[in-house]
Amino acid sequence: MIFTSVRTEGEDQGYGKMAEQMVELAKQQPGFLGVESVRDANGFGITVSYWESEEAIRAWKGHAAHQIAQERGKAEWYANYTVRVAKVEREYGME
Amino acid sequence: MIFTSVRTEGEDQGYGKMAEQMVELAKQQPGFLGVESVRDANGFGITVSYWESEEAIRAWKGHAAHQIAQERGKAEWYANYTVRVAKVEREYGME
Repeated sequence: MIFTSVRTEGEDQGYGKMAEQMVELAKQQPGFLGVESVRDANGFGITVSYWESEEAIRAWKGHAAHQIAQERGKAEWYANYTVRVAKVEREYGME
Repeated sequence: MIFTSVRTEGEDQGYGKMAEQMVELAKQQPGFLGVESVRDANGFGITVSYWESEEAIRAWKGHAAHQIAQERGKAEWYANYTVRVAKVEREYGME
């Protein structure tokens, strides 16, 4: 799951703490494989989380605490965001 | 295509200029749909580029100027990187 977002300007408004909590909570979910996240000084961020299945992604999207975070995200923290669900077909790295 | 990377420490070594050139070149390739890229102050970056097809991705990987950049990336600019080719299945954004 690829999550690109732009933060609202101004105060943190509890975002940093919630973001950390959501990463910790995601790690405890069934089917979680990993997460990589980066945000630059302009407030643009990309978070990629890896899951075993579509079912695992849907379950995480519907998790009660995550839903609260999502609502606050829409209302307070994000000026804009896009979610893309994508299936990894192949992968390679530095030899 | 999801490209996660860690920059080598120290000087830029021409990286910034090459990265810009590669984005401009990618935009001119057949099947290119878009690119989003972010790197934080610790040198960790995620670049996601979107392409119409696997064929377009393979052609871009094999592009002569891009191959030179890839070789310099391995030799000089990246301490580590991973490439994941993934197929977008669905997408949604902020209402």
